[in-house]
Amino acid sequence: MRISELSRASGVPVATIKYYLREGLLHEGRLTSATQAQYDQSHVARLRLVRALVGAGGLSVAAAREVLDRLAHPPASMHDLLDEVQRLLGPKVDDQVDTRAAESVIERMGWRLETADPEPVRRLAAALAALDAADFTLPVDDVLDYARAMQRLAQQEVAGVPAGPSDAAVRYTVLGTILVEPLLLALRRLAQIDASARRFGAD
Amino acid sequence: MRISELSRASGVPVATIKYYLREGLLHEGRLTSATQAQYDQSHVARLRLVRALVGAGGLSVAAAREVLDRLAHPPASMHDLLDEVQRLLGPKVDDQVDTRAAESVIERMGWRLETADPEPVRRLAAALAALDAADFTLPVDDVLDYARAMQRLAQQEVAGVPAGPSDAAVRYTVLGTILVEPLLLALRRLAQIDASARRFGAD
Repeated sequence: MRISELSRASGVPVATIKYYLREGLLHEGRLTSATQAQYDQSHVARLRLVRALVGAGGLSVAAAREVLDRLAHPPASMHDLLDEVQRLLGPKVDDQVDTRAAESVIERMGWRLETADPEPVRRLAAALAALDAADFTLPVDDVLDYARAMQRLAQQEVAGVPAGPSDAAVRYTVLGTILVEPLLLALRRLAQIDASARRFGAD
Repeated sequence: MRISELSRASGVPVATIKYYLREGLLHEGRLTSATQAQYDQSHVARLRLVRALVGAGGLSVAAAREVLDRLAHPPASMHDLLDEVQRLLGPKVDDQVDTRAAESVIERMGWRLETADPEPVRRLAAALAALDAADFTLPVDDVLDYARAMQRLAQQEVAGVPAGPSDAAVRYTVLGTILVEPLLLALRRLAQIDASARRFGAD
């Protein structure tokens, strides 16, 4: 199909498709003349994935390109893959942040991180520091409750990763990490509305 | 204290403080001359809160101003407050999104929403649509597992809201909604690294 047909099939405007081609998010079509290329279903599928990553996934175009690159060239170890994907996500955190409270939570949870990357610990430290800064410090027991809830989910998620390095395992790890975040936050807000309606009703 | 001292006390640059003053995120100091104002601890505390909202909380300056305005002038009903805060947060979702799958989840969870605001349902619909678009549709049972986990947290959170409209209740609702999101996501990632290290080890 031509680029105009690809646009109709994917719902992505032609100008945006050209932008993704320039930015390397979408593979080139098969050239049929100096100015025309043919696209196929692989382009439609890729456009849907790109839109999911930069839309609901909230990634920048640069981060989306790196994620897509990992999907195409996964590292040998699944654990390294998760590490790399997490590094690509979310805002970089101030490396001056005090990580003692975060490390204490990790120790009390008995979490083994086996990673040299300080970023995930710094991210927890920054989240705790923001609560402190708003004078809304959570009791340690509340933080541990949250940690246990996330641990239960993470254990189910990691148990579900297909065995052995494979396209399916990589997709599960990358997309499960990125695209489930907005799902969790959306569900939390709906659950809060329900709990609030039950407690406060039409007061 | 003068603005330069306020900057040192809060760690926020003078130019940023002036920007927050212009944008109405920070209340004016007490004028001591035509060009000088005195600031106090209330300004230091407010700056910490603003930084938490626009930093870890990920709010835009406009959204932060609205949140601060709700903290200062809360609505009479706590349920309305949660509703309003949720409306201020997160990206607006395409109003053309198909909400049938989201409504089915809400119905199976037995959630009563008692709100005319379609945004939280659309946000869930968009999160599910992004998973579909990435060809990573979650089984309904997995979505319901996530929903039950979030419900347990939300019930604890709402049970912890101080009774009766009060500054404390408003702060709990607003800050608990906004600032706990980055905490949950940081904990989920650490828990995933731990679960991954246990399953895949140093493979």
